[in-house]
Amino acid sequence: MQLGRVVGTVVSTRKSDNIRGLKLLLVRQVSSANAPLDNYLVAVDVVQAGVGDTVLYAEGSSCRQTAATDKRPVDGIVLAVVDTWEVDGREIFNAARGEGAAA
Amino acid sequence: MQLGRVVGTVVSTRKSDNIRGLKLLLVRQVSSANAPLDNYLVAVDVVQAGVGDTVLYAEGSSCRQTAATDKRPVDGIVLAVVDTWEVDGREIFNAARGEGAAA
Amino acid sequence: MQLGRVVGTVVSTRKSDNIRGLKLLLVRQVSSANAPLDNYLVAVDVVQAGVGDTVLYAEGSSCRQTAATDKRPVDGIVLAVVDTWEVDGREIFNAARGEGAAA
Amino acid sequence: MQLGRVVGTVVSTRKSDNIRGLKLLLVRQVSSANAPLDNYLVAVDVVQAGVGDTVLYAEGSSCRQTAATDKRPVDGIVLAVVDTWEVDGREIFNAARGEGAAA
Amino acid sequence: MQLGRVVGTVVSTRKSDNIRGLKLLLVRQVSSANAPLDNYLVAVDVVQAGVGDTVLYAEGSSCRQTAATDKRPVDGIVLAVVDTWEVDGREIFNAARGEGAAA
Repeated sequence: MQLGRVVGTVVSTRKSDNIRGLKLLLVRQVSSANAPLDNYLVAVDVVQAGVGDTVLYAEGSSCRQTAATDKRPVDGIVLAVVDTWEVDGREIFNAARGEGAAA
Repeated sequence: MQLGRVVGTVVSTRKSDNIRGLKLLLVRQVSSANAPLDNYLVAVDVVQAGVGDTVLYAEGSSCRQTAATDKRPVDGIVLAVVDTWEVDGREIFNAARGEGAAA
Repeated sequence: MQLGRVVGTVVSTRKSDNIRGLKLLLVRQVSSANAPLDNYLVAVDVVQAGVGDTVLYAEGSSCRQTAATDKRPVDGIVLAVVDTWEVDGREIFNAARGEGAAA
Repeated sequence: MQLGRVVGTVVSTRKSDNIRGLKLLLVRQVSSANAPLDNYLVAVDVVQAGVGDTVLYAEGSSCRQTAATDKRPVDGIVLAVVDTWEVDGREIFNAARGEGAAA
Repeated sequence: MQLGRVVGTVVSTRKSDNIRGLKLLLVRQVSSANAPLDNYLVAVDVVQAGVGDTVLYAEGSSCRQTAATDKRPVDGIVLAVVDTWEVDGREIFNAARGEGAAA
């Protein structure tokens, strides 16, 4: 999994039948120091995440291992909203303190 | 999934039996700002997309999770034609306004 | 899938039992403009492709979705010999006209 | 698999039901010479690893092949704590001698 | 699959139960010209390969398609020891002539 921030949403009317009803989030990867990276993906939301949330996302076949995405052609999901993370005992990000600043 | 634009088509007569009948699109990835990137793939069309369409594509095993591609040796599909996307509340792309310009 | 050119062959006597009998091709990726890229893979041939052929190859679990490669530890296959491809309505490659020149 | 060092932990309350109870480690890849690389992932711990441990991690669908992660949307796991490794007959890392120094 | 050379071994006592008994090799990728690349992986040996051998390795879910690795959390295997390979009709590597020199 990787850390990321939800930066937007994607809307599509004409799409494969078995992705109907899924919410598509545009997610930007962040580094372990909480700096935005130049890597984006479109991921299906399975935890009611929204723009601005710092999240954990998965890629590949594992994305189909949720009730919402089972047997669907989905290769990216947002599977958790992150509360905090630490590196070497130091707290890098804490959602309760507002949007995390880069270290 | 990633955002891309359909830029061409690929034709093959001599091919694995179980990809017969599938339409092969050449897709160029676009950035979250709708700028063309130097990353291409050949993807199977499952939504009647055509050259010029802005699309969402998936890669890997998830590509076999549609009726058209079930149990086929396909590792890229175009699974949606994109209407719009937003980043930080600003609309970056809107298909109804014609081909999206880079931000 | 990606476009590539078969540039060589690989021979091995001591190998996993379940890849016996498979032909191993060395494939070099080509760009959408038909320029050789610095990316190679060893792929199993499922379409009787040979050195010099321009081909379509797949990677990952989808490579096991052919009769020849079913349940084998194969993560790359050549699944089609390419006749032509077009970008923005212009023909970039045509096998009938001999080895494609870079655009 | 790749070699890495556990550098931190990630905490999330709002998450996909089927990752509840799993411990999330932040892992930094190390080179074959035991130098830290600029590549991180969040991986599920299946061997009671902790911060500072040098580990082996796997990615992709193989991550679901343990009792703890079976059928869960997990694309990274720490599957071993490394004791030693050698390159060209020379010991590069030895956990018993304390945290490995880069070569 | 990719070409590589076995450069070392990795030892672990504390590990996931279902990788017990597997031999872990450190493999360095080599180019089509047989030059060492800056890409390494830890792969499970299924062909009794040893340090110095030039090998073929696979990655991803296909690594579980051998008797030794079936249903194990393994994302890299050495599945063949390479005898020779050719590029454009010229022999680049021949194991019988000793360790291959870069072209």
